[in-house]
Amino acid sequence: MKININGNIVGPEEATISVFDRGFLFGDSIYEVTLTYDGVLYKIDEHLDRLWESASRLDMPISISRKQLTYQMLKTLKALNETRAYIRVVITRGEGEIGLDPSLAVKNNLVIITKKLPENPTWWYDSGVEMIVASVLRNPKESMDPAIKSGNYLNNVLAYSQAKKQGAFDAIMLNADGMVTEGTTNNIWIVKDGKLKTPPLAAGLLSGITRKIVLELAFDNKIPAAEENFTPEELKDADECFLTSSTKELVPITKIDGISIGSGRPGELTKRLHQIYRQHVKDYINRQRGVQDEILGDKS
Amino acid sequence: MKININGNIVGPEEATISVFDRGFLFGDSIYEVTLTYDGVLYKIDEHLDRLWESASRLDMPISISRKQLTYQMLKTLKALNETRAYIRVVITRGEGEIGLDPSLAVKNNLVIITKKLPENPTWWYDSGVEMIVASVLRNPKESMDPAIKSGNYLNNVLAYSQAKKQGAFDAIMLNADGMVTEGTTNNIWIVKDGKLKTPPLAAGLLSGITRKIVLELAFDNKIPAAEENFTPEELKDADECFLTSSTKELVPITKIDGISIGSGRPGELTKRLHQIYRQHVKDYINRQRGVQDEILGDKS
Repeated sequence: MKININGNIVGPEEATISVFDRGFLFGDSIYEVTLTYDGVLYKIDEHLDRLWESASRLDMPISISRKQLTYQMLKTLKALNETRAYIRVVITRGEGEIGLDPSLAVKNNLVIITKKLPENPTWWYDSGVEMIVASVLRNPKESMDPAIKSGNYLNNVLAYSQAKKQGAFDAIMLNADGMVTEGTTNNIWIVKDGKLKTPPLAAGLLSGITRKIVLELAFDNKIPAAEENFTPEELKDADECFLTSSTKELVPITKIDGISIGSGRPGELTKRLHQIYRQHVKDYINRQRGVQDEILGDKS
Repeated sequence: MKININGNIVGPEEATISVFDRGFLFGDSIYEVTLTYDGVLYKIDEHLDRLWESASRLDMPISISRKQLTYQMLKTLKALNETRAYIRVVITRGEGEIGLDPSLAVKNNLVIITKKLPENPTWWYDSGVEMIVASVLRNPKESMDPAIKSGNYLNNVLAYSQAKKQGAFDAIMLNADGMVTEGTTNNIWIVKDGKLKTPPLAAGLLSGITRKIVLELAFDNKIPAAEENFTPEELKDADECFLTSSTKELVPITKIDGISIGSGRPGELTKRLHQIYRQHVKDYINRQRGVQDEILGDKS
């Protein structure tokens, strides 16, 4: 593992932060997670867009420029030297006197955690995973908007814990209207009568980057797709179901609350979309390689 | 300032925690804040009860015993050597592989922050403070129960920020039913026609320790008091209004959203209750002094 703390790259033992950091005290931080394919950072612009969007919704000033942050990310990955890497960028409001007032902190802390990312288990894709519908509801937009990717993640931890206790892979969370929102770290999709559906952002969920790509790829490939609310009953009655996330790509969901989805095997459209997605990843990586080499070259 | 990190007392510069701590990554931590009066720790049992209650609601094992934690708190305060001190105890789920699964961390981290606590400004009590009703709603119990005093505090930070922008002292938060819940770090009370009211725990709020004491003191002093829901309209139409918190005691609220409460001056019952409360503090401190000296003596 290599960790970048405000520009200094250290090992895990030295990777520490002040207990006066508001990220530690209040979860007053924002973050993004992505990965590298063959050494190339995936969808960096999209993740940085979302990071800045989270900051804006929290009125959190970010003192580092996008260009500088990109450089720090690439520099850390270069030090890690793995072809397939996990990268987590955390920006906190910084340190100061203890108090809710955000102006008590004047300077962000930047933490970039990188580590070797093992290949995802093949059984996820071959057999599909089992999920539950959590009784813990997703935070409502009016309280703590799930569109903000912040250090306040206990809501998801609580839902995940319910899944864990039941031996499931993960939990699907509902909103106060009883509609499906998202998994604890992924977006949720169903296929019914050949049509692809995922809940709209208005349901209260994170605007997933893989979610957006899959919507675009469905459109490009003339697969009917829509952002539409659905209930847990419709979810369990679907022909196919899958989740999307940057690090997991598309993972078939074959059982929910013990009920088999469709045939109980990964669906055909799910598999087709995953192939289309993998091609999209390859094309992106090929286009990006030179660009990223240049950013690192400019500064190093 | 003196900070205790897992039993070691250090200064603020050395007070650091791993970036792999779940408190930093997810706000997966619980905490309590209290103070000392004349060198004696206030309501330690009540705060530890609530700390363990928060842990239980998060299914977070606490490896330290109450007795050991009390000792560590007193030891840190002794090192600080201030008669009036602020003390914050944070227990996190600990460090481990990054992931929502709580079982990835096996050992709590304990952080105790102590510092000199200046006297509260006299104008708070002489003139009262101005609050706003935040548009950000308090987290609902079904998502992230406000009864848990956790490191997920952005909901309150967002509400506080609204107050700050409007030049107010703090914000009062409503629940999804439009009922008053609590301030961002305090409980809210009104007096109407001689009767004292504070929202019930079922409204979705932290079970304040000062709140509980004031309810008991009102009962003992034959002051009619009830835990009852009220709307922001009833709040603004009250004869008196005040907030309670461990470090702030009872602070009159004389204006809300620019509207004067009652006479626009601190209310008579508010002032009487504060006097009764201060006597309660004195009695408690006198009773506790010997007990705490003994705990420290036993171990040091």
